[in-house]
Amino acid sequence: MPRSQTLSPPLLSVTPSALPPPPPARTKHQPPIPMAADGATVAMAAASLCDDLEPATERTRIRDVLDAGAARAGDRVVVGGWVRTGREQGKGSFAFLELSDGSCASTLQVIVDAAVHPLARLTATGTSVLVEGEIKEPPEGTKQNVELKVSRVLEVGVVDAAIYPLPKGKVKLTLEKLRDVVHLRSRTNTIGAIARIRHQLAFATHRFFDDNGFLYVHTPIITTSDCEGAGEMFQVTTLFTQAEKTEKELKENPAPSCSEIEAAKVLVKEKGDAVAHLKAAKASKQDISAAVDELNRAKDNVSKLEERSKLKPGIPCTDDGSIAFENDFFKRQAFLTVSGQLQVETYACALSSVYTFGPTFRAENSHTSRHLAEFWMVEPEIAFANLQDDMNCAEKYVQYLCKWLLDHCREDMEFMVKNYDKSAIERLELVSSTPFVRISYTKAVELLKNVTNKKFDAKVEWGIDLASEHERYLTEDIFKKPVIVYNYPKGIKAFYMRLNDDDKTVAAMDVLVPKVGELIGGSQREERLDVLKQRLLDADLPLEPYEWYLDLRRFGSVKHAGFGLGFERMILFATGMENIRDVIPFPRYPGRADL
Amino acid sequence: MPRSQTLSPPLLSVTPSALPPPPPARTKHQPPIPMAADGATVAMAAASLCDDLEPATERTRIRDVLDAGAARAGDRVVVGGWVRTGREQGKGSFAFLELSDGSCASTLQVIVDAAVHPLARLTATGTSVLVEGEIKEPPEGTKQNVELKVSRVLEVGVVDAAIYPLPKGKVKLTLEKLRDVVHLRSRTNTIGAIARIRHQLAFATHRFFDDNGFLYVHTPIITTSDCEGAGEMFQVTTLFTQAEKTEKELKENPAPSCSEIEAAKVLVKEKGDAVAHLKAAKASKQDISAAVDELNRAKDNVSKLEERSKLKPGIPCTDDGSIAFENDFFKRQAFLTVSGQLQVETYACALSSVYTFGPTFRAENSHTSRHLAEFWMVEPEIAFANLQDDMNCAEKYVQYLCKWLLDHCREDMEFMVKNYDKSAIERLELVSSTPFVRISYTKAVELLKNVTNKKFDAKVEWGIDLASEHERYLTEDIFKKPVIVYNYPKGIKAFYMRLNDDDKTVAAMDVLVPKVGELIGGSQREERLDVLKQRLLDADLPLEPYEWYLDLRRFGSVKHAGFGLGFERMILFATGMENIRDVIPFPRYPGRADL
Repeated sequence: MPRSQTLSPPLLSVTPSALPPPPPARTKHQPPIPMAADGATVAMAAASLCDDLEPATERTRIRDVLDAGAARAGDRVVVGGWVRTGREQGKGSFAFLELSDGSCASTLQVIVDAAVHPLARLTATGTSVLVEGEIKEPPEGTKQNVELKVSRVLEVGVVDAAIYPLPKGKVKLTLEKLRDVVHLRSRTNTIGAIARIRHQLAFATHRFFDDNGFLYVHTPIITTSDCEGAGEMFQVTTLFTQAEKTEKELKENPAPSCSEIEAAKVLVKEKGDAVAHLKAAKASKQDISAAVDELNRAKDNVSKLEERSKLKPGIPCTDDGSIAFENDFFKRQAFLTVSGQLQVETYACALSSVYTFGPTFRAENSHTSRHLAEFWMVEPEIAFANLQDDMNCAEKYVQYLCKWLLDHCREDMEFMVKNYDKSAIERLELVSSTPFVRISYTKAVELLKNVTNKKFDAKVEWGIDLASEHERYLTEDIFKKPVIVYNYPKGIKAFYMRLNDDDKTVAAMDVLVPKVGELIGGSQREERLDVLKQRLLDADLPLEPYEWYLDLRRFGSVKHAGFGLGFERMILFATGMENIRDVIPFPRYPGRADL
Repeated sequence: MPRSQTLSPPLLSVTPSALPPPPPARTKHQPPIPMAADGATVAMAAASLCDDLEPATERTRIRDVLDAGAARAGDRVVVGGWVRTGREQGKGSFAFLELSDGSCASTLQVIVDAAVHPLARLTATGTSVLVEGEIKEPPEGTKQNVELKVSRVLEVGVVDAAIYPLPKGKVKLTLEKLRDVVHLRSRTNTIGAIARIRHQLAFATHRFFDDNGFLYVHTPIITTSDCEGAGEMFQVTTLFTQAEKTEKELKENPAPSCSEIEAAKVLVKEKGDAVAHLKAAKASKQDISAAVDELNRAKDNVSKLEERSKLKPGIPCTDDGSIAFENDFFKRQAFLTVSGQLQVETYACALSSVYTFGPTFRAENSHTSRHLAEFWMVEPEIAFANLQDDMNCAEKYVQYLCKWLLDHCREDMEFMVKNYDKSAIERLELVSSTPFVRISYTKAVELLKNVTNKKFDAKVEWGIDLASEHERYLTEDIFKKPVIVYNYPKGIKAFYMRLNDDDKTVAAMDVLVPKVGELIGGSQREERLDVLKQRLLDADLPLEPYEWYLDLRRFGSVKHAGFGLGFERMILFATGMENIRDVIPFPRYPGRADL
């Protein structure tokens, strides 16, 4: 059974052989015991190293046991995991447990004798066990993998099957129902497989860009810029909690009334009179000074009362009744980013090849199977690059991801093929090995207009934004392979995309793939200061907030290009899953943000 | 000059040799041209592939030129970058440009003859150029690296030195001033070096965990849980923008007045009477039906007016005057995460070894050089692991990072040593090769109490949270190496840390390193349902929001442990930089969120 391989020998193994027990190793390599600054030797501490702690757990991953197969037969190992299915056999004399630890899709068959541990505690689905045992070769003639004969049950985490939300065996919860137990659904085969595929795609992303000299840049999540000039954004604020604090504080200690303030002012008058009186009477310096002190304290008190009297419950407002965002944490309105592109351009225009990979946000009221309020995006940005360079990079990247999954996730991909999408592996093979078709928007529209055997919901004509049905028709029906459409009408694209010489189109490109349609959107960026300013004005955007962005064109401007890949879209494409809420660990959408 | 190495041959090279020009390659590998579904062949599209686009740019990275050195002398290459310093020589007959493209700390010396391009346009610091030329061996007897003799200047992005915010040469802006030009500061040597170091640390993080069988899990940024039960959190909302929209909408189309609604009601009455009248008069079905339609329209109108009359400007409130968060995007209050730990535990308790690496947030009013409102954290979580396993993992991880920088970032580390911290490389060498001291909190307090040659600001006694001065004294003065302090008093640690048998301490551990003090904080988690519940109650936390977390202990509970590493702290430690605002691309702190 092929299973994904690690890239190099692990440095940190959970097996005892690879990690020598701390004390001897430490003693062996330890340099001469240094003297503490105060003269006390460190010997005391060194001698006491962890002897009051439980020794490290000696666990071998199930993947490693299965990968080694018969070669490790006879080895004694400690294995931990959760029981997928368990059954008593031989009239209750022993039990088979199918154990999963998430390291691979396969389970390890574990055999426990009744003499070793009460079997009834072990067999319920979801039970966790840490067991020690011997790796045994499978019975001759069977195609089975190795199994583990248990000699000691070290730990058990029981499950009450009557209330466990993930029922045993064939009674499967739907994916939709699983979203209601988002904290437990990673224990299912499906979400486990997706977690491993997601990990491999993320890791492959970093590998690809590092191999090609790109620097990973963490663009900000909280932003005061709006990339598209149109996005529905979440606002980030502390005004509500500030208001709550003020209210609580006022409840405990109400704001002073007018009469309290008046009384305090009267006191100031009295203390002032007293000072004047003492001065007139030529009293001692000491007495005058004491009276002045009293006067000052009374004055302080008035200021404090007046300050507190301004405290009002609720969100702070300006005089015209609008909300006073200058009181917010960042002294202005701040939002969650919808894209790191504009910010990462500042790094591209300094360090040439960069990328960002992080969460992005849209406060759209979308309830579809393709939208999330929080999702992850990969956004490379390349200096000294035009649209053709951009397409080359996008094509190589997508092909790399597909090839990576075929090489590192075969078992999980086979699971997806068997259970969700029989063409998932074929699709990866097609995309990883086929050059992408490249076609201009204008040509694509011509092709779609000539389609006679299918009626589109939206009419095709030059100038429209291609709908998902058009995109999928291009890639799935006309070309039957990935397609890059480029040079879109400027009217439907963002201000930062480079204007072509025809003055009608911009140097944008979308990568379309079977199953999901648009996987990547990118463009060459407008590097000409005057053209960019005009594009901002044409889009009814103010120049001032974009001055920093214009600076990149003002000082040593370079042609540059980049794109964005919706990471969850990529997972949908790879796995054939239908709903984006199932390919992100904790989906966020209108009305829902569990955990 | 040692320079960091890529891990494997790049798949995507920006040189033309590695990326064959698209059309021939495409023709060569292309399968038979498929027929389009509507009968049109794809030939038209295939024939038109990109011939309307500029060919890809053929750029070689400066690092590759310098790494190859004399071996590539005679090669013709295209190089792009920004001029660090430029000077005319030979009475203006040629110019030397020191060119940087961010691929390494070193610059490439580029020589341009006046006959090739007007020199005055090229020499200003910050100018961008894309040039073609020949790699030349350095003059004999010099230690210089290769240089580039330019034959063609392909593109220039000029700079007006009079207004360029990053002045030339030795007149350096302070790091503090650079924070005011956050969009340009990546063009400086310092921020460039930090960007490369940051990239390598991020990449090494993914390598380390992948090598050791950990899955990368994207925990949510927007959360409805509070990890620490105490953190100052940012709230995420759409209520302000909703209110803004309502206000705008009411301005354009004011809410109906009472008299308008009354008039509409009168109309309903009239239409109702008309229907009754027609029915009584036994009018035709057609007439009655038409009158009923009119009546229904009138009724609809009343509902719509009544609905609109409820629209109020401002933030929506409940009847008791508090803010109606059920109208917010997630139908409840939602916040930015302060840690992904609790959520990633759900994956650890299913897939064993997992980690998260993402942005986290604190709305603390901290203006120190060690705090940010937005920062990145690495948080591994390991099932079937105790505190000793946790410490082993933390130690191996930190050592791996240090070793990685020594192997992959030597040139940038030398820059840091020269300009910021002369012991930076020594520190990496010490930490990567020395086993960490492990000492209990109780022992650490004893050692600190016995210190006589130094007066701490905060008095040391059992029960206090160790201050930075104590932590640094332990690692810098007493042990002179990394120290792991474990088993802290339960009173100063979070509810989820496992209670020790002494009932006084919890299985927590902090990794302390020279220069920054605490680099890592971690613990074994409380896996016993009853103990965890009691700890929540003791911390005055309500159980209900943590029911999902308790479920992990209710169903197949396992001992598990994890830790968090503040990624910017790690960069401070590695580079010796003093201010955390200089080691993150776009720092966020009170009053400041540029871009």
